[in-house]
Amino acid sequence: MNPTLEIFSQGEEIVTGQTVDTNAAWLSQACVNMGFTVTRHTAVGDRLDELIALLKEISSRADCCICTGGLGPTSDDLTAQAASLAFSMPLHFDTKAFEQISSFFRNRGRTMPESNRKQAYLPSGAIRIDNQWGTAPGFTLQYNRCRFVFLPGVPFEMQHLFNEFVKCFFERHYTLNPKQLITLKTIGIGESDIQTAIADITIPPEIQLGFRAGPDHIETKLLAPAQYPRQKLDVYIDTIKSRLGDFIFGIADDCNHCDDLPSTIDKMMRDQQRTAIFIETISQGLMAAKCAIANDWLLETHYQRSPAHFADRFSVAFDDIMDLPSQAKSIANAARNQSGADLALIQLYSEDNAIDKQDCTITIYNALLSPEGLRHSTHTIGGSVKRKQNQAALLALDLLRRYLQNTN
Amino acid sequence: MNPTLEIFSQGEEIVTGQTVDTNAAWLSQACVNMGFTVTRHTAVGDRLDELIALLKEISSRADCCICTGGLGPTSDDLTAQAASLAFSMPLHFDTKAFEQISSFFRNRGRTMPESNRKQAYLPSGAIRIDNQWGTAPGFTLQYNRCRFVFLPGVPFEMQHLFNEFVKCFFERHYTLNPKQLITLKTIGIGESDIQTAIADITIPPEIQLGFRAGPDHIETKLLAPAQYPRQKLDVYIDTIKSRLGDFIFGIADDCNHCDDLPSTIDKMMRDQQRTAIFIETISQGLMAAKCAIANDWLLETHYQRSPAHFADRFSVAFDDIMDLPSQAKSIANAARNQSGADLALIQLYSEDNAIDKQDCTITIYNALLSPEGLRHSTHTIGGSVKRKQNQAALLALDLLRRYLQNTN
Repeated sequence: MNPTLEIFSQGEEIVTGQTVDTNAAWLSQACVNMGFTVTRHTAVGDRLDELIALLKEISSRADCCICTGGLGPTSDDLTAQAASLAFSMPLHFDTKAFEQISSFFRNRGRTMPESNRKQAYLPSGAIRIDNQWGTAPGFTLQYNRCRFVFLPGVPFEMQHLFNEFVKCFFERHYTLNPKQLITLKTIGIGESDIQTAIADITIPPEIQLGFRAGPDHIETKLLAPAQYPRQKLDVYIDTIKSRLGDFIFGIADDCNHCDDLPSTIDKMMRDQQRTAIFIETISQGLMAAKCAIANDWLLETHYQRSPAHFADRFSVAFDDIMDLPSQAKSIANAARNQSGADLALIQLYSEDNAIDKQDCTITIYNALLSPEGLRHSTHTIGGSVKRKQNQAALLALDLLRRYLQNTN
Repeated sequence: MNPTLEIFSQGEEIVTGQTVDTNAAWLSQACVNMGFTVTRHTAVGDRLDELIALLKEISSRADCCICTGGLGPTSDDLTAQAASLAFSMPLHFDTKAFEQISSFFRNRGRTMPESNRKQAYLPSGAIRIDNQWGTAPGFTLQYNRCRFVFLPGVPFEMQHLFNEFVKCFFERHYTLNPKQLITLKTIGIGESDIQTAIADITIPPEIQLGFRAGPDHIETKLLAPAQYPRQKLDVYIDTIKSRLGDFIFGIADDCNHCDDLPSTIDKMMRDQQRTAIFIETISQGLMAAKCAIANDWLLETHYQRSPAHFADRFSVAFDDIMDLPSQAKSIANAARNQSGADLALIQLYSEDNAIDKQDCTITIYNALLSPEGLRHSTHTIGGSVKRKQNQAALLALDLLRRYLQNTN
């Protein structure tokens, strides 16, 4: 039997709908992957009596509970106080926590506001979870059958604390039988097309097949019992891989983490010691912005509204009636020579008047000029201006990814 | 006293974190705006006993509850059955519902799968909520003190049913007094510094003061009772405004919507009919990418790793030992002249080696060259590479916002 786990989110901004509770989903997925059975999510606002009642209730129902939020410096941050009252563990001043909070401000050349002192008070008997990414330390304590973990509500702080501390802590304290999860990440192919492509593959009922469409890529997931033989599972993975081919940019399983598209490209650019220049139109800086993991391989990016301006900028002959491939080739060539980059990635488009319009489709033309010659791709994209911008950036980067994967 | 309302979401995909529960936030916001006090969100998976226990629990605690999900045709859709058992209201076959489900398929030229028949069974005594946007009818019933509303989990169906039926139904059944909410949005000042700046303002206990720190800006919120006189409330708003001054980029209340920073800038750039060129370093394209609402006022953006490259690009004399203000001025001047833009916004930085490093702080220098001269700002930013990139983009854009707000 897997241990049960509940997620408890605290904050008026969540319960009133000002903030979508993405922490609950992130934590649930992480805990399901570790082998917990997540049974319930609860969110309440900043009322002490409600918090106390709920903590007591959960302590008698679940084996484990992760609470987020309410650890900030302000008067509406009541979680430590609520835990202290619910579990009769008086708050005490933790000097180590206080030192960390003070040095957080000192390192940033700022004076610590008096209000942050409050964050150093933790329930006695709790184990402190050091937070290098913000001012709120987390903590963990046991009450009744339930192990409680309290984390700050700021997503990146919460995620760091979970990954750096909570994960190892859970692995030591629980006997977990995580299922085997294999995730194939694709770009450039829609969810229904993926389903059609693999519809005739017979997958045994004990393996669960799922899909998750995000704004940046689509995940096809296989979830198998812990004891399911990996060789048998590999047969299904290989069949799906052969159907989806080049659309797959990464595969994650228990042994391999798989990054998002920009991180995948970043790794290959470094490994292959290449440099690039980007020429952006629809993506308006987002191609480069997505690659801001490290700056050393991306030498330059330029956004201009019209290809004519680029031609001017790079002093190449330009004619409005030239077709997109000829325009792209001549600009990319000049950009590559002038910047000294190994690769020039350029995006042009047709139907000028559709860029700024919501829900109009637009055809984009991506070209990548490398020492081996010119590769290109054409896509039609639609939706809001923001969606078109995002898709345009991703599909251009995906042309670079395909080149790097095939030349390696 | 406002009636209390809870949101109850049903579905294994929510509780395991495969789907982020955006319905809960959407419904909460809509109900808070109507005048409900939303007290709790709960999500559970597809287990009949848990569903029954939870429905009973809520019936004795809240004045109203909106449940989403679990109304589909498959065996794991258990909500109607759970409601029937929890409230002793046997399921009965609703012929009108069945006719609607059948015609939904008929109108699309499809045969109704036998499994959809199940969706026509509703608890006896419930009022059906017709669904023209999908196959699952909603329903509403009263038990103990609580009015339950059951809606499908598909967001657009749920939203349609809420807007077309539930809203009017609530207005008829409850005496609602929506509160007054005023939100002040700031950038460039931290949450603790805001609190310190306004700490000595005595705000009456019936006005609730709250803060919300997001990755892009911080919101200071005042929530006042419906009957609280607006003139009296304005005194507090004005006092807070005078303390936070230029850090405020927008104020939202019942009458005025307030956009995020890029949209605020976009509106002013259009209204004032100006054009701009951006010169980016740390932000690596993100300054421009954030402004991709419309493209007409942003003529160009350029990212290069080093100021020396910009000097080269714009053919200006450049000396490594020049200070940042002189470098910025000479590059901005050339960029503005060559592009023909009204405004040149440039970002330079010191401590070259800290850009790519997580958690190192870096000092950025933003300059805006306009027909009226040069404005500049200096900030020290820290955190992950992604956070530094985001802050760098926002703080440069904020210099532009301050200029536009003051010249208007």
